[in-house]
Amino acid sequence: MARVSQEHLDARRRQILDGAASCFARNGFHATSMQDVLKETDLSAGAVYRYFRGKDELIAAIVTEVLDTVRDILERAVRESPPPTPDVLVPRALAWMREQRPATLDDGEWMFPRLMIQVWTETTRSPELAAVLGDGYQKVRTTWGKIAESYQAAGLMPADTDTDAVARAMIALVQGFAAQMALFGGISEQTLGEGLRALMTMRRPGQRP
Amino acid sequence: MARVSQEHLDARRRQILDGAASCFARNGFHATSMQDVLKETDLSAGAVYRYFRGKDELIAAIVTEVLDTVRDILERAVRESPPPTPDVLVPRALAWMREQRPATLDDGEWMFPRLMIQVWTETTRSPELAAVLGDGYQKVRTTWGKIAESYQAAGLMPADTDTDAVARAMIALVQGFAAQMALFGGISEQTLGEGLRALMTMRRPGQRP
Repeated sequence: MARVSQEHLDARRRQILDGAASCFARNGFHATSMQDVLKETDLSAGAVYRYFRGKDELIAAIVTEVLDTVRDILERAVRESPPPTPDVLVPRALAWMREQRPATLDDGEWMFPRLMIQVWTETTRSPELAAVLGDGYQKVRTTWGKIAESYQAAGLMPADTDTDAVARAMIALVQGFAAQMALFGGISEQTLGEGLRALMTMRRPGQRP
Repeated sequence: MARVSQEHLDARRRQILDGAASCFARNGFHATSMQDVLKETDLSAGAVYRYFRGKDELIAAIVTEVLDTVRDILERAVRESPPPTPDVLVPRALAWMREQRPATLDDGEWMFPRLMIQVWTETTRSPELAAVLGDGYQKVRTTWGKIAESYQAAGLMPADTDTDAVARAMIALVQGFAAQMALFGGISEQTLGEGLRALMTMRRPGQRP
């Protein structure tokens, strides 16, 4: 048997994950069979099962990879001083995700938000996947918390701010916007930035302009 | 046949919708049969089919009702002058939803967020449901836009704010928070309010304190 390079192995793994992600995003996790994944990737069963034992391993690998990517993007932001404000950072994070995972569905819509919704539904049914998603969420939340602390250190956010609540709100915004993309399509990252900027420039009654 | 009051008819309809919502939230739309709904509501097929012809009609009725409730809550806010700021209004809207639809799942978690995720997944598969959800979303978005205009009129938000972007961001926050509730449980509306307040009190670099 010919020796294969690590590069080849990585590329093959990538091909399998992308193909499986397309299937899951298009038809949902339950309606997708391993046969569908083989057909999508144009690989033999032997080639695919060498990497993943089944659908559960595939979806866990996809989720882990996506959350690692999100965390990498945020960790880069933590190292800027001060980090970009949310109205800049959140749309940038989504734009980066789109660059890294540009695949679209047959209707031309970005695949990733649709995949996210399918993963959520499957998570409510699978304790294993819930554990994977919960672990990744926890890490993203911690990183957002660090960003909020940097805002505090730079004097952009009051010292008594609940940084974990900020982290959850930032994650909620990304989740909600991605849900709107998946359900209704045609929303740009700019719209998200505009909405956030409006919130950040809003006064409360009685507060001086 | 005995004549039945409108009150009785309404209560019966309510019972069916609540039972169906429980089934969908627990097991998803596809894994739920009309037989499951009959069992859950303890009603005969004749009693249920008198109101709804099948699962599609049930889920459409549930979605329509939820979105109408959300809009009612927001329309009430529009009539206040100025409307409550987002850090007050968004948690209040979620708390009201919880009051109106307090049902919980077997694990004690609030049922509504779980149902929301199931509806989203089904929406990606059903053009009919997508139309119902799209219509309701459009109405909620318009109402949020009116609230943002009231903020502008009260001098709380700059006159050149993109009010539709504000509407979408507010909806995204609610969607994302509900998703976190469904996936990870145990998040209070207060956390949402704290996160929003932090964003509203945040400065951008170079902006005076």
